[in-house]
Amino acid sequence: MFKWIDHIVVAVQNLEQAVQDYQNRLGLTPTGEVGKAHPHLGLRNAYFYLGTSGRFIELAEPLGPDTPLGRTLQRRGEGIHLVALAVEDLAQAKAELHRRGVRTIEATGMLFIHPSETHGVLIQLVERKG
Amino acid sequence: MFKWIDHIVVAVQNLEQAVQDYQNRLGLTPTGEVGKAHPHLGLRNAYFYLGTSGRFIELAEPLGPDTPLGRTLQRRGEGIHLVALAVEDLAQAKAELHRRGVRTIEATGMLFIHPSETHGVLIQLVERKG
Repeated sequence: MFKWIDHIVVAVQNLEQAVQDYQNRLGLTPTGEVGKAHPHLGLRNAYFYLGTSGRFIELAEPLGPDTPLGRTLQRRGEGIHLVALAVEDLAQAKAELHRRGVRTIEATGMLFIHPSETHGVLIQLVERKG
Repeated sequence: MFKWIDHIVVAVQNLEQAVQDYQNRLGLTPTGEVGKAHPHLGLRNAYFYLGTSGRFIELAEPLGPDTPLGRTLQRRGEGIHLVALAVEDLAQAKAELHRRGVRTIEATGMLFIHPSETHGVLIQLVERKG
């Protein structure tokens, strides 16, 4: 069902500071607009693509404490929020998970596997063709 | 410097239970020996490869509380222990990080970037050619 590790999302307190650190310390370059707000997700973010692989690290700062990311950050501090795995067909993956009785979370068109199913890892499934 | 997300390591309390869950819930199949002990790393583990990508999820149970993984597990509970990023040349990556003044951790031939440099993510660098 899963094809590869597509990206990770890192929860950070201060996006601009974190972007600067990933640039200066790790030598990565952000792609696209840094700090774009996604109100439906409750966060603002930046993307760092890894070479030409299409895989990336996303840094995300919550738009407030009462967002999913804000709650994670308060509970656990900065660090990995989720791991996204690529699947060929999202609807098919969802059907297979439900057939297995796996608890999923669906929010704003996105599909997650509940961390209680994976020993503590929040997994997002993303559709990637080919 | 970084080419792709190579694998993640998930810290678990009970490897056999976790392997069973990843098989039954997520439909993944372990590759190689399940539960092989690596005394120099202080853990026993299992590998789940994702499709034909060569990327994988590693489940790891500490061999005791006084190991790096054991301490992580006590402090944070089950979940992601580290993310491994592929580099073309490990020695070159290490030199570049040190030129930038980045704090690294070297242990049993492995190279890590200290989580204080990455806003809470323990990153391992692994050499992957091509």
